[in-house]
Amino acid sequence: MIIMNSDATREQIDNVIKEIKRLGLRADVSKGEYRNVIGIVGDERQIDFAHFAAFPGVKEAIGIETPYKLISKEYGKFAEGLGEHKAIRVGSIDIGGDEPIFIAGPCAVESKEQLFRIAEGVKRAGAHILRGGIFKPRSSVHSFQGLGAGGQEEAQEALEWLCEAGNKFEMPVITETRGETQVDLVAQYVDIIQIGARNMYHQDLLAKVGKKGKPILFKRHFGAGIEEFLSFAEYIAAEGNRDIILCERGIVPVGKGRSYTRYTLDLAAIPAIQKETYLPILVDPSHATGRRDLIFSMSCAAIAAGASGLMIEVHYNPAEALVDGQQMITPDELKDVIDACQRIHKQL
Amino acid sequence: MIIMNSDATREQIDNVIKEIKRLGLRADVSKGEYRNVIGIVGDERQIDFAHFAAFPGVKEAIGIETPYKLISKEYGKFAEGLGEHKAIRVGSIDIGGDEPIFIAGPCAVESKEQLFRIAEGVKRAGAHILRGGIFKPRSSVHSFQGLGAGGQEEAQEALEWLCEAGNKFEMPVITETRGETQVDLVAQYVDIIQIGARNMYHQDLLAKVGKKGKPILFKRHFGAGIEEFLSFAEYIAAEGNRDIILCERGIVPVGKGRSYTRYTLDLAAIPAIQKETYLPILVDPSHATGRRDLIFSMSCAAIAAGASGLMIEVHYNPAEALVDGQQMITPDELKDVIDACQRIHKQL
Amino acid sequence: MIIMNSDATREQIDNVIKEIKRLGLRADVSKGEYRNVIGIVGDERQIDFAHFAAFPGVKEAIGIETPYKLISKEYGKFAEGLGEHKAIRVGSIDIGGDEPIFIAGPCAVESKEQLFRIAEGVKRAGAHILRGGIFKPRSSVHSFQGLGAGGQEEAQEALEWLCEAGNKFEMPVITETRGETQVDLVAQYVDIIQIGARNMYHQDLLAKVGKKGKPILFKRHFGAGIEEFLSFAEYIAAEGNRDIILCERGIVPVGKGRSYTRYTLDLAAIPAIQKETYLPILVDPSHATGRRDLIFSMSCAAIAAGASGLMIEVHYNPAEALVDGQQMITPDELKDVIDACQRIHKQL
Amino acid sequence: MIIMNSDATREQIDNVIKEIKRLGLRADVSKGEYRNVIGIVGDERQIDFAHFAAFPGVKEAIGIETPYKLISKEYGKFAEGLGEHKAIRVGSIDIGGDEPIFIAGPCAVESKEQLFRIAEGVKRAGAHILRGGIFKPRSSVHSFQGLGAGGQEEAQEALEWLCEAGNKFEMPVITETRGETQVDLVAQYVDIIQIGARNMYHQDLLAKVGKKGKPILFKRHFGAGIEEFLSFAEYIAAEGNRDIILCERGIVPVGKGRSYTRYTLDLAAIPAIQKETYLPILVDPSHATGRRDLIFSMSCAAIAAGASGLMIEVHYNPAEALVDGQQMITPDELKDVIDACQRIHKQL
Repeated sequence: MIIMNSDATREQIDNVIKEIKRLGLRADVSKGEYRNVIGIVGDERQIDFAHFAAFPGVKEAIGIETPYKLISKEYGKFAEGLGEHKAIRVGSIDIGGDEPIFIAGPCAVESKEQLFRIAEGVKRAGAHILRGGIFKPRSSVHSFQGLGAGGQEEAQEALEWLCEAGNKFEMPVITETRGETQVDLVAQYVDIIQIGARNMYHQDLLAKVGKKGKPILFKRHFGAGIEEFLSFAEYIAAEGNRDIILCERGIVPVGKGRSYTRYTLDLAAIPAIQKETYLPILVDPSHATGRRDLIFSMSCAAIAAGASGLMIEVHYNPAEALVDGQQMITPDELKDVIDACQRIHKQL
Repeated sequence: MIIMNSDATREQIDNVIKEIKRLGLRADVSKGEYRNVIGIVGDERQIDFAHFAAFPGVKEAIGIETPYKLISKEYGKFAEGLGEHKAIRVGSIDIGGDEPIFIAGPCAVESKEQLFRIAEGVKRAGAHILRGGIFKPRSSVHSFQGLGAGGQEEAQEALEWLCEAGNKFEMPVITETRGETQVDLVAQYVDIIQIGARNMYHQDLLAKVGKKGKPILFKRHFGAGIEEFLSFAEYIAAEGNRDIILCERGIVPVGKGRSYTRYTLDLAAIPAIQKETYLPILVDPSHATGRRDLIFSMSCAAIAAGASGLMIEVHYNPAEALVDGQQMITPDELKDVIDACQRIHKQL
Repeated sequence: MIIMNSDATREQIDNVIKEIKRLGLRADVSKGEYRNVIGIVGDERQIDFAHFAAFPGVKEAIGIETPYKLISKEYGKFAEGLGEHKAIRVGSIDIGGDEPIFIAGPCAVESKEQLFRIAEGVKRAGAHILRGGIFKPRSSVHSFQGLGAGGQEEAQEALEWLCEAGNKFEMPVITETRGETQVDLVAQYVDIIQIGARNMYHQDLLAKVGKKGKPILFKRHFGAGIEEFLSFAEYIAAEGNRDIILCERGIVPVGKGRSYTRYTLDLAAIPAIQKETYLPILVDPSHATGRRDLIFSMSCAAIAAGASGLMIEVHYNPAEALVDGQQMITPDELKDVIDACQRIHKQL
Repeated sequence: MIIMNSDATREQIDNVIKEIKRLGLRADVSKGEYRNVIGIVGDERQIDFAHFAAFPGVKEAIGIETPYKLISKEYGKFAEGLGEHKAIRVGSIDIGGDEPIFIAGPCAVESKEQLFRIAEGVKRAGAHILRGGIFKPRSSVHSFQGLGAGGQEEAQEALEWLCEAGNKFEMPVITETRGETQVDLVAQYVDIIQIGARNMYHQDLLAKVGKKGKPILFKRHFGAGIEEFLSFAEYIAAEGNRDIILCERGIVPVGKGRSYTRYTLDLAAIPAIQKETYLPILVDPSHATGRRDLIFSMSCAAIAAGASGLMIEVHYNPAEALVDGQQMITPDELKDVIDACQRIHKQL
């Protein structure tokens, strides 16, 4: 990154940007109160930082060693004047602020009635944000793929229900975009766009949602190490969007024999990631465990590990849910989870 | 699947299809010489097979228990009159036929000169199909993303080079489509469309390429079990495309300490998969090992394990390659690999 | 298991045992206040339970389906009159009781002075049990193997220090036995015998320590699934010892690239295991993470997940420790950990 | 390692050894025709190599960077005058020589009759060495543990049968020692002592068998990386025994859903390990796959990958075997495997 003097002129900044482009790289400009910082998107190893340091108006030119530069603490500090952490504002809610945030709702939106009934329940339980899947990634083409699979009209209708429910129960809303063709539509409606675990490596999609100017909830892939997770978050950041909410949801289990949990929830990733980046990180205990009877324990554990909040699947009658019924809890159970998590959070 | 009598009428078939649709499912019709078989795309568990068996013209109605039905041996036998294996024809080449097939070329196309020089080399070494990456999935936004990242024109130019090289050296060509927006363009040019490992779970992309009527090379994701791999191949098959070439390229390593190979090449997956489906399966030793000095051994091993061929990255000067130089071999080394593999294949 | 009538005679019980032995199996007799239960060690599938049900004095004969029978909840309930959980008494301390228990001390005992200074520190911090490694399992033959490697005399001296420190600071003591030849010696001195993760599969050692009549702390191997973990605990139980304290300490990391933690701490295993067995389970965040700066978070998370306690490595000056300095915390830091954990425990 | 001049005196060598011991380390002396090399067992980082270089008679003092020094190619070259590979002689057979070696026999010895019948079969099929398990490591205490579990007498009797069968059919014999208490007994009888995968980390056992002066077949643990595997082989080497035959037998599977193979056979480990050490490496396809129908393919693949041989479980009637019947092949099938492997080996 290139730190400009506080009194660097527009022309001096432009000269640096021009030189960066001449080298086949992209520039990411952060304007601060006291200084401007220019991040470099591309292979820094080709850069002669001493060369840049000699440009008029440049205070310092520093290489960042990780593959995730724009979301690193170092860059956050210099370029955006951030402290250790960044809170991301959605409506009146701060994700990554002082209080844990709870995102809840059905795995898949099945009908307006189902959605509203669940929305009412999660609001009452204390949830802050309403989730509802419309485009569902599924392991089998023979399974229900969400209402969005029914066509443009059905997708739009479901998105409208989601917004309506959000308005009625005063919660911002989030849904997943599974492919590139859905991005524009989804971005029109929701407050947060979700990128699911299966799409973490899908860089064309990341570049596309990164341009939408909305907060992104970005899930870790179940085969990804932490370095890869952060490196792909950088694809969103490279589009100028730093409102990225990370989310841990379990990695592939190892070992033979029957699995007692669907994935292995990697809670040590929470504090480990918090040492690397200013972005907030949430936990999804529903997909990680795949077991309703483990949600309470793993929610408490996630908050105790320092997570900024949780994303939990809820249904008033899990047995009749079309997708993932075995991992959903009821609104009443959600209330117990939220209450316990808030009590625990106060002890940290 | 629903097996119709050999003399079932068009109307009888249509009635069955109508009933399938009425249940909210899709029908996949295979017309054979001796009988017609109707596959069901969707959740078979909702189906009352006895109900269908009573329809006029129906010989038998059978549920298939795996989540991969259309690509199962059972379905291949009934619906398509296949034996154990299906050979997929590309130009004058049979993938999954009697002889192992070798796909080779640069990891990334860098220039016309580079591509032609490598194409000439791999042809001379005995390769059958030319590969060349134009849209490169990369772990870091700061790395070279392939010529396709330069824009529509650059992408088109690189695709034209690829076709030209394929024509000149008489090899069908293959390249990867990384995202949905590239599918139409890529399909216009190449003989085989590649879906990379990172995109295995990307079902919107699979549905889109499945409609293109071209053979698909489909790589296993590094976090995917065999059942998941086959279940996602089914997404392509469900679009009516059975020309799917599977490809094993390594799964995430386990264990602490430094990795001696980039991924763990799961060669036992080859015979295990061949027991499940009629589709051919190849191996990519380049990405699996990430080590030039292991390519020869792992190529021999893959062929000995029963793979229908290999996909290998080649460069005349690996040291100067922009991407993955450490895993590329030279055309001369490729010749040694192909010769050894062909000798081994004869012993099986 | 075979549940006898409350008024079954000694002879009737003996007849059942004789019949079990005749079938080449072993009998595990639990005498309760209201009834006697005879467990079967060996392959139950050869057993005709109906045959046993017809024996005089037998109330019921039931097969247990898991490979871990003697430690299953079902067996605990019938044979030992246990509720959901069993508390294991060590001195005046209950492991698996109402309060979380903290085991702390140096990774390796280095000298009497070092041990006493740390013992004093952990006691002051609130620890209940003192740990100190004397026989250290190490990945390299070229590393320090613990004072026990110096010979019988050195081992004995170190064990004496450990007991002395335990007495002085009023804490029961625990150390690891790495091999069979050390079992008798270690059992003479300590209150709890530790079986390390690397020895989880070491069934001859398990059988040997199982006969010692002392509580065993039994760590999960880093490559073991939960079913295997419990199946090997059963080797200890089969010797008549049910005072088994399970301990989760991380499983092998998956994914390529640098590891941010030494192992992956599988906290969902805590509630999952608690559904299967009455045995208590602890967590060792020190070995799991290998990172001093993650101990606080992962300790809190483990307690929130429901663990019955923690095992933590402590040194007054981590930088000068001979083994694993990078993962040890100071007594003051331990105090913070214990205080936070106790506050969190109260909220569950 | 410290390389002495070719004319270094006994006294000069002793002085170096004395100095090594004074530093709390152990010396490993290799006497060659042209020079003597002294290896250091212990933490080399404490060593000032320049200090040793100044000793009379010392030609050169060099640190080796891997944790496996004594089995490294570098040490093999200097200390033992080895080329790339070392052949280990057992009777008239060279393991790691020009021809692949086949070890075959029953998983578990069940009776004299069973053993002899299988021995006759594997000999006829072309096997070189006879295996037969007497002390069986098992995942469940409720499973058959081998005849050795019956007591000292039964163990001895089974060992005698094994030797008798080896004599009669002219094959050296190998069996596993599961615990320390069996080492002396086993070493009395067999030509090669096997250390099973579950015992790879069991360093007390390794030190004990290392002193027996017999070749050791040393299996990789299913949770171990390559570096760990070689580091633990070093425990045997540190006892002065370099007749170590490595064996790959699969690592823990990753990914959710049903497993198609019991473990993941890591064949790329073969050439990767051959770059690191002079020791030969075999493959056990029986335990790795757990599937009889994959043995042929994976045997061929292992030999093609460069393995020095195979270890395969054989039974004349797999269905009636007491242990692991689903992974055993018949003598006739073994013949097909050996023939194919030998044909393949000739092509490399």
